[in-house]
Amino acid sequence: MNRKAVYPGTFDPVTCGHLDIIERAAKIYDRVFVSVAHSAEKTPLFSVKERVLMIREATSHLKNVEVEDFEGLVIDYARKKKTRVIIRGLRMISDFEYEFQMALTNRKLADDIETIFMMTRENYAYLSSKLIKEAAVLGADVTGFVPDIVAKRLNKKLSKLQK
Amino acid sequence: MNRKAVYPGTFDPVTCGHLDIIERAAKIYDRVFVSVAHSAEKTPLFSVKERVLMIREATSHLKNVEVEDFEGLVIDYARKKKTRVIIRGLRMISDFEYEFQMALTNRKLADDIETIFMMTRENYAYLSSKLIKEAAVLGADVTGFVPDIVAKRLNKKLSKLQK
Amino acid sequence: MNRKAVYPGTFDPVTCGHLDIIERAAKIYDRVFVSVAHSAEKTPLFSVKERVLMIREATSHLKNVEVEDFEGLVIDYARKKKTRVIIRGLRMISDFEYEFQMALTNRKLADDIETIFMMTRENYAYLSSKLIKEAAVLGADVTGFVPDIVAKRLNKKLSKLQK
Amino acid sequence: MNRKAVYPGTFDPVTCGHLDIIERAAKIYDRVFVSVAHSAEKTPLFSVKERVLMIREATSHLKNVEVEDFEGLVIDYARKKKTRVIIRGLRMISDFEYEFQMALTNRKLADDIETIFMMTRENYAYLSSKLIKEAAVLGADVTGFVPDIVAKRLNKKLSKLQK
Amino acid sequence: MNRKAVYPGTFDPVTCGHLDIIERAAKIYDRVFVSVAHSAEKTPLFSVKERVLMIREATSHLKNVEVEDFEGLVIDYARKKKTRVIIRGLRMISDFEYEFQMALTNRKLADDIETIFMMTRENYAYLSSKLIKEAAVLGADVTGFVPDIVAKRLNKKLSKLQK
Amino acid sequence: MNRKAVYPGTFDPVTCGHLDIIERAAKIYDRVFVSVAHSAEKTPLFSVKERVLMIREATSHLKNVEVEDFEGLVIDYARKKKTRVIIRGLRMISDFEYEFQMALTNRKLADDIETIFMMTRENYAYLSSKLIKEAAVLGADVTGFVPDIVAKRLNKKLSKLQK
Repeated sequence: MNRKAVYPGTFDPVTCGHLDIIERAAKIYDRVFVSVAHSAEKTPLFSVKERVLMIREATSHLKNVEVEDFEGLVIDYARKKKTRVIIRGLRMISDFEYEFQMALTNRKLADDIETIFMMTRENYAYLSSKLIKEAAVLGADVTGFVPDIVAKRLNKKLSKLQK
Repeated sequence: MNRKAVYPGTFDPVTCGHLDIIERAAKIYDRVFVSVAHSAEKTPLFSVKERVLMIREATSHLKNVEVEDFEGLVIDYARKKKTRVIIRGLRMISDFEYEFQMALTNRKLADDIETIFMMTRENYAYLSSKLIKEAAVLGADVTGFVPDIVAKRLNKKLSKLQK
Repeated sequence: MNRKAVYPGTFDPVTCGHLDIIERAAKIYDRVFVSVAHSAEKTPLFSVKERVLMIREATSHLKNVEVEDFEGLVIDYARKKKTRVIIRGLRMISDFEYEFQMALTNRKLADDIETIFMMTRENYAYLSSKLIKEAAVLGADVTGFVPDIVAKRLNKKLSKLQK
Repeated sequence: MNRKAVYPGTFDPVTCGHLDIIERAAKIYDRVFVSVAHSAEKTPLFSVKERVLMIREATSHLKNVEVEDFEGLVIDYARKKKTRVIIRGLRMISDFEYEFQMALTNRKLADDIETIFMMTRENYAYLSSKLIKEAAVLGADVTGFVPDIVAKRLNKKLSKLQK
Repeated sequence: MNRKAVYPGTFDPVTCGHLDIIERAAKIYDRVFVSVAHSAEKTPLFSVKERVLMIREATSHLKNVEVEDFEGLVIDYARKKKTRVIIRGLRMISDFEYEFQMALTNRKLADDIETIFMMTRENYAYLSSKLIKEAAVLGADVTGFVPDIVAKRLNKKLSKLQK
Repeated sequence: MNRKAVYPGTFDPVTCGHLDIIERAAKIYDRVFVSVAHSAEKTPLFSVKERVLMIREATSHLKNVEVEDFEGLVIDYARKKKTRVIIRGLRMISDFEYEFQMALTNRKLADDIETIFMMTRENYAYLSSKLIKEAAVLGADVTGFVPDIVAKRLNKKLSKLQK
């Protein structure tokens, strides 16, 4: 039975909060697909390829985690991976309603697939990729907010942008 | 006394949730003006003319509903239509504070006009024009989320955009 | 058409916020029934009779407002009064979900009756009967929070209780 | 791996919303324990024994669901059942923070056990055992809000109480 | 100027979250009065005297913190202590609206006194005295949730109650 | 001890709500720095220089308030001004989580600096710079929402833009 789950997102970039969800999911599912969405309204800071690579490196200690990108609807992707479970992290109430809308829309489109919500560690509950990028642009040291590989690449990317 | 009400919005496009509010309003007011706002920050997907036409078609069974576009402040428009009631739909908490801010701003600008809030059917509470457009772009079948006329035009519009 | 509306509540006691809603409702409906619910989980501070009398005195300037008590379901009461509209005041988000639950439950029980929500003046948005009673017990002067008749009776009631 | 999950609650009484969560959980777990908590602050309407029996009857079509009562901490119970997953339903934001507090407290007490959240069908999102009991007391027909067995027993219980 | 602040509460019992606020306040005010309210709707678990003593012991390392009990309105107490600042901790949104109501009510009663809000450390954001007591009653080890003195007295108190 | 505080923001433009916070802060701190952030994602309506000038004029009656612009992280700026307190206004719940995220991120970056939250007068709680600009663009008279100097400049700015 349902031993596989999909954890989709934009991950631009992956944070310690995302990583915490991945680790928790890896403990309760046999296989977890971390699935990086192509489609983002605005231009992402990191390319899909970069985002996949950073998550791969940050999750290299988790044997049952696979990272890849996907296009189109997440429910179609989940079906392709033969999984019935989509995982989403819940941090704050501001997430909550958007996640609800998404999950109910997905359920209407595909009633055989279930969205389950997991909670980040409370230390990471306030992290958001957006805020981290803003702080980094203003010169903040974001070590501890993101995996080391991300902090390194973020600095490199920003020093290039600022030249 | 107040037998007329204005139901303003961007309606880009009208959803089954909007339609549900229109039907409920039409039962408790003698005349309901569905008023499509020109002004939208970003470029809308459908032109004002298209949005008006789609609502007209979707509400053709409601004899006391009139659809038109308007420019400027909704309170000025409401006064022009000689109505004292503005109707707004409430779905989720994320609507709530924005709606409150709008309604209190409008009340300060025009104390003789009252905003009343009505609730969508719970099946439609999670619908948002934005999410529906995003899902349609990714290939979702949005029948059941929007009136048929909208689903048809949305498909046509998107297949044009993707060429 | 729907020229009458019911505004139900416990009103233990009526506050300036309630009164503001009654005044606004009286402007957009031909007749407003302020309906004091018997049933309250806990022992109310004021008897139903006292609560009706205080609202009557505080609304004596509003010719189209009638105050009475009711027992049982509000939808049954609304039907008896031949009205299709139930009015509820919305102040804060904490109200919001309870009101939603109530309204959706009522809609399921009686689909012909519509709940509409109106907003209190922002100066009264933070008022609650419960908080006012607590403050009064601790010795606060609650003039300005409640109609004068209520302030007077609240003081009398509390000085009796404290003897 | 984690093929079992615990779905704890007071279930006084079980609603169609609870039942919907149980059915969804039964599809993504090999075995689901519906666990009725003894401890409730106030006097429950139904005894633990009655609550267990009603859920058993309402879930008799689900072969991988077991219903029983438990005392003490839910994490100790989950360990006894050799499961690492606690399921909780999320309906509205008012649930959200309480559930978060509970889940974080449980995580601190037992880091090997994970709480996952599932969403009720949107038609049931507004249901609460408390509201249903209140409505039933006032004479409402609660068929459609609760499983048939519960509606029947609720009526019997209330007609006894009112004698 | 305002070198003193009052931090009022019921503190039944004081948690690590409260203690965190006290420590933060002690860094930005010359003197902090931790003020234990007598009045509580329900019977508290610990007497006012016990609550004061536990906070005193838990804050003995903070030289500019004084702990005492008070009766009546907090604004009257603040004036008696010649301070213009009331401190309140904010954890979650569920606190937020109640705190807002309280603060606005207090501002109306005493416009010269200002309520300021401080944030608990995120690790403590989910702690509540109520939840801790419930968990302790069910047998949980609450070390790490409350200061040691509280954990010890809570165990003693509960073992007495259960005899 | 902490007699100085920083009140940072974009202030595009300053509203009566911001001004209310500044006046309250000026009563409980010896010196208040109102600090206008350069960095804003989108193009602001008013230049930093204009925003500083308007706040200076609107606060000219407050002798202990200084207005200036700043670049970079607010915690670095606060340290440069040798203050340990950052003030933020709280209006509605929609502010709340964003402010929490910001404050927790700042605390992680600089644990010696504390963010405190103050409440706007309830009459101003619904004001937002964004909504005021939108209303002004549509022709609303925003006197009473913003200080007079801002209303004047807003009209001038908009009449230029519309030519």
